[in-house]
Amino acid sequence: MIRFNCDYSEGAHPRILERLIETNMIQNPGYGEDLYCEKAAGYIRKECRLPEADVHFLVGGTQVNLVVLAAALRPHQGVVCADSGHINVHESGAIEATGHKVLALANTDGKITAAQVRACYDAHYNDETHEHMVQPALVYLSQPTESGSLYTLAEMDAIHQVCLDTGLLLYVDGARMGYGLMAENNDLDLPALGRMCDAFYIGGTKVGALFGEALVLNNPALQKDFRYILKQRVGRLAKGWLLGIQFTALFEDGLYYKLGRHADEMAYRIRDGLLKKGYSFFSNSSTNQQFPIMPNSDLEKLAEKYAYSVWAPIDESHTAVRFCTSWATKEEDVDAFLKDLEAL
Amino acid sequence: MIRFNCDYSEGAHPRILERLIETNMIQNPGYGEDLYCEKAAGYIRKECRLPEADVHFLVGGTQVNLVVLAAALRPHQGVVCADSGHINVHESGAIEATGHKVLALANTDGKITAAQVRACYDAHYNDETHEHMVQPALVYLSQPTESGSLYTLAEMDAIHQVCLDTGLLLYVDGARMGYGLMAENNDLDLPALGRMCDAFYIGGTKVGALFGEALVLNNPALQKDFRYILKQRVGRLAKGWLLGIQFTALFEDGLYYKLGRHADEMAYRIRDGLLKKGYSFFSNSSTNQQFPIMPNSDLEKLAEKYAYSVWAPIDESHTAVRFCTSWATKEEDVDAFLKDLEAL
Amino acid sequence: MIRFNCDYSEGAHPRILERLIETNMIQNPGYGEDLYCEKAAGYIRKECRLPEADVHFLVGGTQVNLVVLAAALRPHQGVVCADSGHINVHESGAIEATGHKVLALANTDGKITAAQVRACYDAHYNDETHEHMVQPALVYLSQPTESGSLYTLAEMDAIHQVCLDTGLLLYVDGARMGYGLMAENNDLDLPALGRMCDAFYIGGTKVGALFGEALVLNNPALQKDFRYILKQRVGRLAKGWLLGIQFTALFEDGLYYKLGRHADEMAYRIRDGLLKKGYSFFSNSSTNQQFPIMPNSDLEKLAEKYAYSVWAPIDESHTAVRFCTSWATKEEDVDAFLKDLEAL
Amino acid sequence: MIRFNCDYSEGAHPRILERLIETNMIQNPGYGEDLYCEKAAGYIRKECRLPEADVHFLVGGTQVNLVVLAAALRPHQGVVCADSGHINVHESGAIEATGHKVLALANTDGKITAAQVRACYDAHYNDETHEHMVQPALVYLSQPTESGSLYTLAEMDAIHQVCLDTGLLLYVDGARMGYGLMAENNDLDLPALGRMCDAFYIGGTKVGALFGEALVLNNPALQKDFRYILKQRVGRLAKGWLLGIQFTALFEDGLYYKLGRHADEMAYRIRDGLLKKGYSFFSNSSTNQQFPIMPNSDLEKLAEKYAYSVWAPIDESHTAVRFCTSWATKEEDVDAFLKDLEAL
Repeated sequence: MIRFNCDYSEGAHPRILERLIETNMIQNPGYGEDLYCEKAAGYIRKECRLPEADVHFLVGGTQVNLVVLAAALRPHQGVVCADSGHINVHESGAIEATGHKVLALANTDGKITAAQVRACYDAHYNDETHEHMVQPALVYLSQPTESGSLYTLAEMDAIHQVCLDTGLLLYVDGARMGYGLMAENNDLDLPALGRMCDAFYIGGTKVGALFGEALVLNNPALQKDFRYILKQRVGRLAKGWLLGIQFTALFEDGLYYKLGRHADEMAYRIRDGLLKKGYSFFSNSSTNQQFPIMPNSDLEKLAEKYAYSVWAPIDESHTAVRFCTSWATKEEDVDAFLKDLEAL
Repeated sequence: MIRFNCDYSEGAHPRILERLIETNMIQNPGYGEDLYCEKAAGYIRKECRLPEADVHFLVGGTQVNLVVLAAALRPHQGVVCADSGHINVHESGAIEATGHKVLALANTDGKITAAQVRACYDAHYNDETHEHMVQPALVYLSQPTESGSLYTLAEMDAIHQVCLDTGLLLYVDGARMGYGLMAENNDLDLPALGRMCDAFYIGGTKVGALFGEALVLNNPALQKDFRYILKQRVGRLAKGWLLGIQFTALFEDGLYYKLGRHADEMAYRIRDGLLKKGYSFFSNSSTNQQFPIMPNSDLEKLAEKYAYSVWAPIDESHTAVRFCTSWATKEEDVDAFLKDLEAL
Repeated sequence: MIRFNCDYSEGAHPRILERLIETNMIQNPGYGEDLYCEKAAGYIRKECRLPEADVHFLVGGTQVNLVVLAAALRPHQGVVCADSGHINVHESGAIEATGHKVLALANTDGKITAAQVRACYDAHYNDETHEHMVQPALVYLSQPTESGSLYTLAEMDAIHQVCLDTGLLLYVDGARMGYGLMAENNDLDLPALGRMCDAFYIGGTKVGALFGEALVLNNPALQKDFRYILKQRVGRLAKGWLLGIQFTALFEDGLYYKLGRHADEMAYRIRDGLLKKGYSFFSNSSTNQQFPIMPNSDLEKLAEKYAYSVWAPIDESHTAVRFCTSWATKEEDVDAFLKDLEAL
Repeated sequence: MIRFNCDYSEGAHPRILERLIETNMIQNPGYGEDLYCEKAAGYIRKECRLPEADVHFLVGGTQVNLVVLAAALRPHQGVVCADSGHINVHESGAIEATGHKVLALANTDGKITAAQVRACYDAHYNDETHEHMVQPALVYLSQPTESGSLYTLAEMDAIHQVCLDTGLLLYVDGARMGYGLMAENNDLDLPALGRMCDAFYIGGTKVGALFGEALVLNNPALQKDFRYILKQRVGRLAKGWLLGIQFTALFEDGLYYKLGRHADEMAYRIRDGLLKKGYSFFSNSSTNQQFPIMPNSDLEKLAEKYAYSVWAPIDESHTAVRFCTSWATKEEDVDAFLKDLEAL
């Protein structure tokens, strides 16, 4: 079975394992107060051109989202996001469990617009009953989105402008950031995110690390006492240096980008093969996740050799599915898939 | 200024004040363990034909909703409701503050259908990622709805059947129950609610009481330790007998229904006057709230003498507004309004 | 049965009922935005010499505690209080249900000292593992305490000084404030509390009102968006003017103090009677609650005519109990009690 | 610098790294639904003689505590534990952040007794105001305790008996379980824990793993929907097989016990050296943590070469400190320490 169902099916890039072996018996202080975390944070600050930002390393993405929102919001405040946003759908209510409402807006291709954010703000702040409603306080975006699409620099800038005008905070979930940064036509780089976001994270789990996400806390107001909340919401790893070592390996010489590019290229080959077969697509993705709408009969045949994710039923005989590539995807597996696809 | 903007602008029906005066210096045990509460609970059990139900008296509706949901749901469970539902819009995130997601479905005239509830259940329980999503566990309906409309017996029965099939609990918010029970064409009475609901409440604040809501807890599983949660979520009034006295007055001889009928009749006169002027309506209401769509120019004129609520902007020159009647609405105020309306 | 078991066994002072009757059919805007609340707030600001304070009226004391703490604390912060504090014992975990730890210090006569507060602060802030512990952020005191004792001006000043030195907020629960203000030897008046506290409340439920507490929010940082949190935590009464009317009646000409004095005097008569019989006391109370330690045999005899609260078992044959007086306590009931006591 | 300050200063036992390398590019399903987790769960069920138990693998100990308590408790329920318990002190209020009160009892040597638990239960359940108090529902113990001490089989049995009598659940935090199981005089083995506990966890992070804890859920009532809550409280690792691989390595042939024994032996050598110098001890520990009370002057000298944790100030010139050994402690480091200690 060749697994294209998700982008977290293998361990880590070999360089990361090597580093873990080399440093295994070196004694370190715990909870992220070690030299590796310091070094990795330095690399990331430099990539984002944010010399003053705090960088924290956490184990997983839901953890990062939960800790940031718990730290940023007062009890009566909510987070604005796409209805397809990870925090709205696939975190088992983790955000609500911290006491906050998710104000979900209808997505287009996984994205929301500046105008939607503005309208949501206006509906809540200007209404005569505003004190009876949740107060929107933060905008959550995913880059790339859960549908594989990307915000353009212009789209993100427009949302950022609404945030500036209204006082909303801006936070970006970058679980698959590497695949977005290296996508064709992408014009939203780390310095641009650093300039606009109050906080964002750069995902490692899906992009070469064994596990781990790098959270960039840019807004000083969010930095205060953040480590307390990190501990309370179980976001601190005892052997924190394991995260520092991994992000050092990913960012010391651009390995993160190289892995991102590889996955995107593998995805484009799959996309092109699917297009060639005439399938339409559920979303307009230029990253490592591709969402073709396929006849169920074709899917059944492919399922004998390939794992994919069922995304959404379309009609009685068609289903939208997800094929994922990753840093670990092998050329020969893509070759085999394309050959079998062509033969359908 | 004559206030039609809401249905809680006056104190209480005179009988209630009289009772409070008569009993003022009688010493009672606190926290609802008095004879008045016992008596009132008996009346309500009888009206609902639920001899085994627990009846609790609380001060306000948001309180009831919050306590019931906090008691009924496990941490990973959510509540299904109309997107126009009071818990989804106008409780400042009170439900999320107890840790639970509100799963909002698109309303039609303030209502949701059995098919929508079933589809929501299926989408969450049958999906391969269901453990990454909130688990729907309870259906929240309002009767009458926030738009003044009513579930028919058949509609409610269909939703109840979905609940039986899936294990979802059924809870009805009856903040304006009296106005629903006595509405023209209503076929959903208290025994029917008692038969179908795991819990529901009969609103007093808006229907003749100074304050107070009567919660009927029908499902034994919800009864266990409920008074602990009532205390924790500040739903217990120290001088609990104040609530028992009021509900005794409302239910000992049908005053509650009489007050409900009065408000509906006043509302129908207003509705008929609005129809006669040719206005269309934002919702199809047969209860004490009426939602005409009116030219802003007309509204401005009326605003000199009458208070109403702005509901929703329709276009540049029209707005949907709310006119409310209540148990306290005076015939002469309605007469004056109709005259001024006609003269517009 | 004559009830001395608590101080909320009767309705309200007659003047309050009269006002409710007089104003019953006057239409008011809801949720505390009416003229009565404005007027009552003015009286209270004046009594406290706090012209800039926000004053909010809530139904009950647990509600006030919960809303203030939810509004004042960030997620990782806790509240320091006596282990006998109401929030630590008798609110069914209401504070923890908002996510916050109660850091309970050993009480002496219901009180804690400035030195204890300072030591608690130091233990949490200076420890090398402080980020793994809850951060103390607010001091909760009750005046009078749950044991009927009173902080002196000097004691409160010392605690206030620790708060100034450390940045801790100071909040006083005044459920029985009236009985404290008028107690013999009390030197802590409302202006003193106003000068020292970030927030405190003046209790009505136990001091003449049907229900209601007046929260004084003195610290501007606590005022921001407070009404949102009030709504979310079900602290807003739809017919808010009912609270405004009551506090107007209590504070327009000093009725509140008069009622407080009456209860204290009744309590002193009971105390003196108990002393004369040679009983010792569980706590040193100069307010309306008295806690004698009595032989169980005496208690059984008294129980035939008088209700009291069991406070704590002392040994096999003695129990500490509570006798409460209130604004409503009748001289003749105290006379009868003293006579029966003497005859034991 | 040789670190004796904690037991999580190194990576993992070499066998674990080897396994991670061998399996690195094998594709696995995510979130713990892989064959390694299944295999490891089987080993653990067998060790505990619990063929029907659910076994879940989580990243860290605070995570396990939080998820178990969030799943086990209803909103009004609290957890009984020693005041020195990890959940009461060093989790930044993580349990309270799930809404539950920690009912802390005075510890003796890190432990509480069956009689204390029973008294706590009685004080809360039998009091006339019990519905105004938190309801104790679960007993949390640590084995070994935070002070390095151990519950004997008889002590644990007595607590278990109270749990059976009252309906309290029993949960054991085994962050350092391996060091307890192999301690001299220990008579509490995994089958005994399996027989008595509703849930407990076997710590890996501190006993040879890179990270990871194995939670044994024994009570079927706790198993229902547990994976939802695991996801919501961020307890599920995307690449869950990383945990399965580690626990397979630890339990396939008893490596876990061997590592536990090594650390204990190293700790006994340190203890004996400290005893020889005549120091007294802050607690009676027979596991890998030793807590001598030492002159500050001696500590300063040792601090030049050795890291230890400051535990508690004793007087002006003495401090209780913690020396930890672990699976990774080198004989030669202990030799060096003992030599330097002797030379003080």
